[in-house]
Amino acid sequence: MKTIKRILIANRGEIAARIIRTCKEIGIETVAVYSKEDTDSQHVLLADKAVCIGPAPAHLSYLNVGVIIEVAKANQVDAIHPGYGFLAENAGFVEKCEEAGIIFIGPTADNMNLMGNKIAARITAKRAGVPVIEGTEGSLEDTASLSEDELDFPLLIKASAGGGGKGMRIVNNINEMKAAIQEAKKEADAAFGDSSVYIERYIKNARHVEVQVLADSHGNVVHLGERDCSVQRRHQKLIEETPCIFIPNEMKKKIYKDAIKLCKETDYTNAGTIEFLVDMDRNAHYFIEMNTRIQVEHPVTEMVTGIDIVKEQISIGEGKSLSVKQSDISFAGHSIESRVNAEDPDNSFFPSPGLIDKFIVPSGLGIRVDTFCYSGYKIPPYYDSLIGKVIVVGKDREEAINKLRATLSTFVISGIKTTIPLHMKILENRDFIEGNFNTKWLEEAFAESNEKVSVN
Amino acid sequence: MKTIKRILIANRGEIAARIIRTCKEIGIETVAVYSKEDTDSQHVLLADKAVCIGPAPAHLSYLNVGVIIEVAKANQVDAIHPGYGFLAENAGFVEKCEEAGIIFIGPTADNMNLMGNKIAARITAKRAGVPVIEGTEGSLEDTASLSEDELDFPLLIKASAGGGGKGMRIVNNINEMKAAIQEAKKEADAAFGDSSVYIERYIKNARHVEVQVLADSHGNVVHLGERDCSVQRRHQKLIEETPCIFIPNEMKKKIYKDAIKLCKETDYTNAGTIEFLVDMDRNAHYFIEMNTRIQVEHPVTEMVTGIDIVKEQISIGEGKSLSVKQSDISFAGHSIESRVNAEDPDNSFFPSPGLIDKFIVPSGLGIRVDTFCYSGYKIPPYYDSLIGKVIVVGKDREEAINKLRATLSTFVISGIKTTIPLHMKILENRDFIEGNFNTKWLEEAFAESNEKVSVN
Repeated sequence: MKTIKRILIANRGEIAARIIRTCKEIGIETVAVYSKEDTDSQHVLLADKAVCIGPAPAHLSYLNVGVIIEVAKANQVDAIHPGYGFLAENAGFVEKCEEAGIIFIGPTADNMNLMGNKIAARITAKRAGVPVIEGTEGSLEDTASLSEDELDFPLLIKASAGGGGKGMRIVNNINEMKAAIQEAKKEADAAFGDSSVYIERYIKNARHVEVQVLADSHGNVVHLGERDCSVQRRHQKLIEETPCIFIPNEMKKKIYKDAIKLCKETDYTNAGTIEFLVDMDRNAHYFIEMNTRIQVEHPVTEMVTGIDIVKEQISIGEGKSLSVKQSDISFAGHSIESRVNAEDPDNSFFPSPGLIDKFIVPSGLGIRVDTFCYSGYKIPPYYDSLIGKVIVVGKDREEAINKLRATLSTFVISGIKTTIPLHMKILENRDFIEGNFNTKWLEEAFAESNEKVSVN
Repeated sequence: MKTIKRILIANRGEIAARIIRTCKEIGIETVAVYSKEDTDSQHVLLADKAVCIGPAPAHLSYLNVGVIIEVAKANQVDAIHPGYGFLAENAGFVEKCEEAGIIFIGPTADNMNLMGNKIAARITAKRAGVPVIEGTEGSLEDTASLSEDELDFPLLIKASAGGGGKGMRIVNNINEMKAAIQEAKKEADAAFGDSSVYIERYIKNARHVEVQVLADSHGNVVHLGERDCSVQRRHQKLIEETPCIFIPNEMKKKIYKDAIKLCKETDYTNAGTIEFLVDMDRNAHYFIEMNTRIQVEHPVTEMVTGIDIVKEQISIGEGKSLSVKQSDISFAGHSIESRVNAEDPDNSFFPSPGLIDKFIVPSGLGIRVDTFCYSGYKIPPYYDSLIGKVIVVGKDREEAINKLRATLSTFVISGIKTTIPLHMKILENRDFIEGNFNTKWLEEAFAESNEKVSVN
């Protein structure tokens, strides 16, 4: 067990600022790293020390393992927090930290190797008795081994190393199959340097339900409930909430149990998220993948449990036992998050970086806005377009929706385009309010292109 | 019972912005009024409609009853929310609203007349069997009726209409008495147009403990727990918190009971605060006054109860019954508020209005910042110097203090001077952390003048 006194945050944006705030609360010094283009970003202003590690794009700075380890050593940090994205799920980076005697605040390299690859994770899940979607066993080279009789169309081709919808294809009949596999392999190779793909039954009416877990290095595992992240656009989550009140409690209990089973099976350590698809027509849940890091949507879980997940991550990194037992964890209220992007929803979600003129952040009872922006800040065009997360908690889903609408409508951002108008339309949509949505709902209900989106 | 659809907010600053946000959440339209000097203030930007009602100072705009009623009528509002300060405790204004058929969101004129005058409130409290500090019965004209034998020095001379320490004098012996009474009467007359004063035993080791109450027009009264507001500078509260963990639970129960008794005795309606002094040496509590309005420090109560006090005020104004029974109200965690003023704590708290260069508002789990400022906003010099309230909630007092410290240290405000450095010193002070403070503590422990304040 080692007390962490100084942490390097190997990230940028809202998550870097958020991690720094928790470090300050628990008396840990922070070292920020930043690209030249991020000089004015909040994490640079807030950290006790900030070191420029190169220019954009990311491979010259935030993904530069050698430089980051060097800065960590030179500043004698005890630990590195990777945030999400960039190096957060890079097992090689974890090993480099270990070699340098620096605690990586996250799971082990073994955890990542086992759960980061979708085919390996499927096999692990099956072994643990956790349901996975019916599909091919391992990586698929061609269609030779497939007989039409066995196939239950539509099917989904997925990249083993995948994420964000890359290397993914829906196939409606055997004739489309061959070409789709070749396209998916090509796309997967380009995106991940790994062309392995596999096939699953395609679930048309699915909800994305994920479980937040915390696991320490002493074998203790707890879950912090679920998050419903079914409102997606091109496999990117837009709105996340907890609890999911539209699936039966009996199923939720099974999902929690399966999530914990998977963590125990893999000796998982630190915070993680086990993602499931719920087939609403068959009333069945299936493990799809694990995210071995803190997630963008973690605040909704914090808002209903009162547990600071970053604080827990740091304490787990120190080798301490979890601060809470499962029986200590209670859930109060309903929390929803809207991811606000600097994009133009009226123009194909075209990125809209640039100078923010006015940036007035709402605040109030049950309101939280995690951001790295401020009036006069210039959003660089080199990074993902997330500029803020608006999170609210209310006594129930209806109050949370009303509060989120009120909060977004008083979030003044001028100078750039944002996705706030889209969020307002979703929050006013009857299907969303009544819970009639699945992972395809947003794309189907709202026109993708320049057309005016319909409001029910 | 009347449904309120449109509210005029007869106030400015953070409380006006805060009221607008709750109105938006519950679907009520808002009309803001503002002085010419407040054109760029948040409440003007956030309201559905904003009407300029004149220039600073306040008597030409925010205190101009005629114009405000006119604007309310012209915009067909159903109700007026007065916030705190300005017209919030003006019984004449309440009557004017009634005459115009507009709901005043607050207590009745009778409630104000009865509880707004300190001598009248003392008599009411005595009648209800609520303890008051030993002192003279009514208004005091001179020292003729006082015999030295009966007097237990030190004594406190207080203005009947008083507030903010005006017309208040500590008297240590009979020789000081005559002059002190004359001075106090003169000061009271100048400040309130009412020279009545009375005498109380002066409590040296006192904590200021107040109870938030909600009362509807059907006779239902609940309390939302207490707030400890003992950290004061010149009778102005700087830091408020709930719960007060430094007085016994038995005493708290008595204080709640007395607060509810007083509300029932006076048929009080809407939100209010009953203030008590706790004599720490005698282990006794005494009613001192009632504030017949929402208070600056109401958010700490909201943070631990989850109850939106403004939402309740509006619903009470509509004639509805309270949404909660006493048994429904539970308290979770510990909340503290720091009032951040645009003042220079290193220069006798001299006001520091002007252009805010950078204004980066912290956010996160359990963090709330109520403000009307933003980067590029110019604070006008005509109003009180409160620019923001930083409120946090943690699982206990220690966590709350750490979180408040972390939050204040990441509240970036440049271009003006603020009292954040003073708050940081208080939050690091051992006496504050251990609870060894009373209403005089801040002034005694921290030098008032330009001298460097000492830090334990």
